[in-house]
Amino acid sequence: MRPAPGCLTSAVSELQRVTVLAGGVGGARFTRGLLAHLKDAHPDGAGGSRVAVTVVVNTGDDMTLDGLRICPDLDTVMYTLGGGISEEQGWGRDDESRRVSAEISAYGRGWDWFTLGDLDLATHIVRTDLLSGGATLSEVTEFLCRRWRPGATLLPMSDSPVETHVRVAEAVDEHPAGSLIHFEEWWVRYRAGVPATEFVQVGLENATAAPGVIEAIRGADIIVLPPSNPVVSVGTILAVPGVRDALRQTSARVVGVSPIIGGAAVRGMADACLSTIGVETSAKAVGVHYGARTAGGVIDGWLVDETDEDAVASLADAGLRARAVPLWMRDVDATSRMAEATLALALD
Amino acid sequence: MRPAPGCLTSAVSELQRVTVLAGGVGGARFTRGLLAHLKDAHPDGAGGSRVAVTVVVNTGDDMTLDGLRICPDLDTVMYTLGGGISEEQGWGRDDESRRVSAEISAYGRGWDWFTLGDLDLATHIVRTDLLSGGATLSEVTEFLCRRWRPGATLLPMSDSPVETHVRVAEAVDEHPAGSLIHFEEWWVRYRAGVPATEFVQVGLENATAAPGVIEAIRGADIIVLPPSNPVVSVGTILAVPGVRDALRQTSARVVGVSPIIGGAAVRGMADACLSTIGVETSAKAVGVHYGARTAGGVIDGWLVDETDEDAVASLADAGLRARAVPLWMRDVDATSRMAEATLALALD
Repeated sequence: MRPAPGCLTSAVSELQRVTVLAGGVGGARFTRGLLAHLKDAHPDGAGGSRVAVTVVVNTGDDMTLDGLRICPDLDTVMYTLGGGISEEQGWGRDDESRRVSAEISAYGRGWDWFTLGDLDLATHIVRTDLLSGGATLSEVTEFLCRRWRPGATLLPMSDSPVETHVRVAEAVDEHPAGSLIHFEEWWVRYRAGVPATEFVQVGLENATAAPGVIEAIRGADIIVLPPSNPVVSVGTILAVPGVRDALRQTSARVVGVSPIIGGAAVRGMADACLSTIGVETSAKAVGVHYGARTAGGVIDGWLVDETDEDAVASLADAGLRARAVPLWMRDVDATSRMAEATLALALD
Repeated sequence: MRPAPGCLTSAVSELQRVTVLAGGVGGARFTRGLLAHLKDAHPDGAGGSRVAVTVVVNTGDDMTLDGLRICPDLDTVMYTLGGGISEEQGWGRDDESRRVSAEISAYGRGWDWFTLGDLDLATHIVRTDLLSGGATLSEVTEFLCRRWRPGATLLPMSDSPVETHVRVAEAVDEHPAGSLIHFEEWWVRYRAGVPATEFVQVGLENATAAPGVIEAIRGADIIVLPPSNPVVSVGTILAVPGVRDALRQTSARVVGVSPIIGGAAVRGMADACLSTIGVETSAKAVGVHYGARTAGGVIDGWLVDETDEDAVASLADAGLRARAVPLWMRDVDATSRMAEATLALALD
């Protein structure tokens, strides 16, 4: 329920559950700031926060490489929240080396455009071993998190393999024009530079949301769409059967944070993804793309950067409560303030 | 056919094919000396030897660890002949590190008594990936050898998984008395120090010799049983259906090199294996254990160390041509001379 005007302080103090629908780097860094804010604003007296945070993570980038199951977004979130991330890269492990992948290359195997770090590889080996033993990806994620203690519950969006593929408009290397290639190949190997006509989530039609995902949406007080890629990260989570309906029906407030600042993606090549689905690369267009829940969309509020302040009024016309605040996640403090503004917008 | 006396030189110059039945370190080092000798004594004019060497390698120590298929003996032979071996250890890769296995341990996985090196791990990852793709172990071995160029054809004894297990006489850690544990666990974790009552080759009854193994025995001029463990290395190869019969029937000369010198194993804990099957730890007893082909055994000749020279006469009584020469594989030169003596004994 939306609190009556004047009840904001009371609502904030009653905050119990926040759910984030995240991709990789952007979602991970936002969530780290969110946890830092909650620890300060809603302490549990034991160094943490009494607010329970659940992160539903995109698994559409997952792939099998050299027989090992790799979950880029889950690992980025886990390492970022658990303290093992390479700050410089935003993904992968700190103090990383690449001895194993150099050896795999010496055998003429592996993909030369995707290098696995040695420390990171251990995660994939353990995950693949547990999966072959019959564990679900949810169970594996819980197991891996026992080590990393991310301070939030990480849930894969689905336990069924779903892999985002990209239909390339032009022939490139061994791929003919019109063929489907794995998103990671398009993204990492071709730096999203090959024109694409569509994204296809292979396996999506038979996928179901992982245990706890629908509950985390239905039972949350606030749901946040962090500044992750709106097409291939958040968009893929929304496409999992049942997720969009749960978002429309939840009593939680749903707010999003724009990954576009001043007409450009904060990080990565989200513009190439947006243009493929015919959405302009602007804070306003992405907010409208998600759409107001009152008009069949999935969000109630949309946070844009202060440079996009002029979009606030037209976003309101589209049924979205919008606010402009600094959105650069320069460090944990700045991100914590961003998270605070996100929660305030939700409870506004 | 055995050449008539006086034809020795002629026979040696006609030598075309040598087959070795090998375990890990001992078999690998002997074969390296053999290849060095053949290169000198039977050059092909291009830096190699015109004598083709096939090494049939024990796969009874193979195991699956963290979901990866590990073939300790195949890898030891491949790395030793291909120039990647750790000379100090005798197994594993030179210039090795253990970053991945430390990470696997941090997850509470892996076996603390069996550490996988990073470089070595790449071999297991590639092997496991190819096997899951449907390749046979023979095909995988051929693929891996394209990189290592061992100068000999390496054949796994079988493409079917065969794993040597040990029945322990006493309870140890989580294993009750009388239970079967993997040979590598008994060997590496317990340093063969837990009394054993038998070795069981799990999967052996349904195993067949890998492609080329029986042919390599039938078509060889000389077959060598190098100083490998006579019970769990050579003994396991001999137990593969068809191998013992092929050895008895081949027109090749079959000679063995004692892994026991002066009543002790040259390397490893072969005495614990021998005592388990009721064979004395002596050069003579092992020769008699293999047995003369004329009396239903598998060898014609048996090379012992000069310290065991007094066994030569009694080995002759057992139907074996025996000779005493220095058997310490101190370096490649010493091993090359040992290999020369082995071939000479075969052609005697």
